[in-house]
Amino acid sequence: MKTNPPTQDWNVPAAGNGLLDRRAFLKGGAALAAAMTGYTVVKSASAERLADDPWSKAPGALVQPYNLPSRFEKNAVRTLSNPNGEPRTQHARTPHHLLNGTFTPNGLHFTISHAGNPDIDPDKHRLLLHGLVKRPLVFTLDTLSRYPLVSRMHFVECGGNSAPMFSKEPIQASVQALHGLCSCAEWTGVPLSTLLEETGVDPKAKWLVAEGADAPALSRSVPLKKALDDAVIALYQNGERLMPGNGYPMRLLLPGYEGNMNVKYLRRLKLVEAPAMSYYEARTYAPILPNGKAYQFFFVQEVKSFITQPSLGLAMKGPGLYEISGIAYSGNGRISKVMVSADGGASWAQAALQEPVHSKAFTRFRALWRWDGGPAVLQSRAWDDASNAQPTRAQIVAERGQSAKTPPVTAFISQHYNGPTSWAVDAKGEVKHVYA
Amino acid sequence: MKTNPPTQDWNVPAAGNGLLDRRAFLKGGAALAAAMTGYTVVKSASAERLADDPWSKAPGALVQPYNLPSRFEKNAVRTLSNPNGEPRTQHARTPHHLLNGTFTPNGLHFTISHAGNPDIDPDKHRLLLHGLVKRPLVFTLDTLSRYPLVSRMHFVECGGNSAPMFSKEPIQASVQALHGLCSCAEWTGVPLSTLLEETGVDPKAKWLVAEGADAPALSRSVPLKKALDDAVIALYQNGERLMPGNGYPMRLLLPGYEGNMNVKYLRRLKLVEAPAMSYYEARTYAPILPNGKAYQFFFVQEVKSFITQPSLGLAMKGPGLYEISGIAYSGNGRISKVMVSADGGASWAQAALQEPVHSKAFTRFRALWRWDGGPAVLQSRAWDDASNAQPTRAQIVAERGQSAKTPPVTAFISQHYNGPTSWAVDAKGEVKHVYA
Repeated sequence: MKTNPPTQDWNVPAAGNGLLDRRAFLKGGAALAAAMTGYTVVKSASAERLADDPWSKAPGALVQPYNLPSRFEKNAVRTLSNPNGEPRTQHARTPHHLLNGTFTPNGLHFTISHAGNPDIDPDKHRLLLHGLVKRPLVFTLDTLSRYPLVSRMHFVECGGNSAPMFSKEPIQASVQALHGLCSCAEWTGVPLSTLLEETGVDPKAKWLVAEGADAPALSRSVPLKKALDDAVIALYQNGERLMPGNGYPMRLLLPGYEGNMNVKYLRRLKLVEAPAMSYYEARTYAPILPNGKAYQFFFVQEVKSFITQPSLGLAMKGPGLYEISGIAYSGNGRISKVMVSADGGASWAQAALQEPVHSKAFTRFRALWRWDGGPAVLQSRAWDDASNAQPTRAQIVAERGQSAKTPPVTAFISQHYNGPTSWAVDAKGEVKHVYA
Repeated sequence: MKTNPPTQDWNVPAAGNGLLDRRAFLKGGAALAAAMTGYTVVKSASAERLADDPWSKAPGALVQPYNLPSRFEKNAVRTLSNPNGEPRTQHARTPHHLLNGTFTPNGLHFTISHAGNPDIDPDKHRLLLHGLVKRPLVFTLDTLSRYPLVSRMHFVECGGNSAPMFSKEPIQASVQALHGLCSCAEWTGVPLSTLLEETGVDPKAKWLVAEGADAPALSRSVPLKKALDDAVIALYQNGERLMPGNGYPMRLLLPGYEGNMNVKYLRRLKLVEAPAMSYYEARTYAPILPNGKAYQFFFVQEVKSFITQPSLGLAMKGPGLYEISGIAYSGNGRISKVMVSADGGASWAQAALQEPVHSKAFTRFRALWRWDGGPAVLQSRAWDDASNAQPTRAQIVAERGQSAKTPPVTAFISQHYNGPTSWAVDAKGEVKHVYA
């Protein structure tokens, strides 16, 4: 199949094994078409009449009060670790390989629940600010809504996301299974600094303990400095009230900090002099390192990226041009650059970033790839504007160990993986997870 | 209730009847607290122990594959004009008064369906580009997904949104009933210009006719210039596949253009020399003006704004500080300024705009208001970066007439209202719709 003669030739490999120049994205139009010569998958219409499909011949379904996805999207749901609700933690993972764009719709935002989703009456729920304050105060949802609100696009990621990457051998699992415990949403709420101005802060206060209204009364200690910086009491998620699995009717949002610290169902904030050493900070999120020390109070989810398309479970359909697409984010700030490799890291091309790039939020990256039908290993690497680079897997393993077992990986060395993910494509177009 | 002594006093009215300076938003912290003296609604915690609520005492509900809102949000749904699906158009309106943030979650994006939502199998659906092209082509969802994608935040608004504003007397209806036929989402898809580069364009082509795969085969004519500018074949809505009510599996997105032209279930794009004069452009969306001419081919949804909180149905709860919040947007570009009045337009204060401000997208505006408990009339007025200002209702009515009947308003003078909406607050805190 031929296209118009290119007016300018961007069709120059930017790195090995078929990666094209990202300027094709920026120029668009003719430049892009030139780069795309080779979409042999597009059918000529000359012989095709487009006979009417059944759904064009009869009225459709009743419009409902709340939009839900098509029944043909039944696989685009969260996978559940504990579908019968046995008395242990329930995980629901975001299907990143089936999504595109720059954030996560509410139906598919990941959830981790240690005792199910509480059924909270928002009119009866209260938030107490107390401890080392000048004047303890109680807030209702109504009173909070009268304060000046802010809207911020931020990711939340579980400290245990990507735990399977600590396995000695690469686990053959989808991006949903590997990295599905992070999501991104627009959170609208009251800056915590505003409320702390209302209560006043005792100079002795250095931490605050945030406690949820769910049955485990989940609590975490947060440095007061973060609370006064960009912490938000979130009341809305992507425009509507928070989902029950994400903290309805209010949660603490600590942009870029470990998911578990973003306490859901927020009920109490107590200002204190020292951390509480609560269960989740002293045990669950304090794994033992190879040197015997506890890996504790590591707040920030560091710079990270992974390719979502192509990825395991999404087979390639013959040689030709493809978009490589993925997600990058950093708890330290904005993504400044993402590089993509099609030859397992031997050479790299710069990916295009979807604007606007928000701080501490998902950034969608894209690269054009001409797959020649031969073997390839796809990989991404991200940088943030604080000059942090995504480390290699070898660097992480050297510091924090890896699991001998495959699977399950143990809980003790399975947190804060932010290295690369590598997808190997074979000649049949099948995608496998490899360490490269 | 007292706060800390202000370090700097922003607590200066910026306009009549209690509107405060928007710089309080920009400064935050102490400046904001100073402005907020008077949150008498906040309870002191000294006497309140926060007894455990029932939901803190027992495990909660099972986590589901797809997050849904709390049962306490049963009013935060779309209102239906035709809940039994009688053989006529079905409207589902966005509850703007219960939402906040900068866009509309997928569950609540408005839908207008002329024959229900078709149940389209995405693997069997085809898009045909034909007519005055050099090479007609057929695309599947899979082949489209291999092209370089873009993500764009854009509103879609029905030309008939706000029709009740043409009523001679103000209709006592919520912002959902008045303005619920517009929503905003992030749309991810393929620029139409890319596909037209693939087909080639015959120089005689000046328009294209877009046709949907639903039973009415809804079709509209679009200037080719718009198709080559910022038109997108949208495949994802807020990160997931399009909702069935919003065009699953693909729709034409014409940023800023009348909703009906953003053809859902997109099946054919035919390049032609002149518009098709289809039903929806020759009859439904071509109302007769007072001067006897047809108001036809008015593509752009012009600059507009309305206050969502407070608004009719949301009663005020005693004097004190409140956030006035609303939505502004323009089909011509970015919102550059929103002014807010609390005295029916006698004086105006500049509202804070939520950054980033996207082109042809909802922009959340916010203003601080100290309600003294007396009567007030709240109003907003927006400007865009093409220097268009929201007109007055009197200007619109002078050009396009108004309905004598209240309600229903006739279809012939009920389109493209972009004037102000005025909410009168009485001493009891009740909110009414007035013309001011």
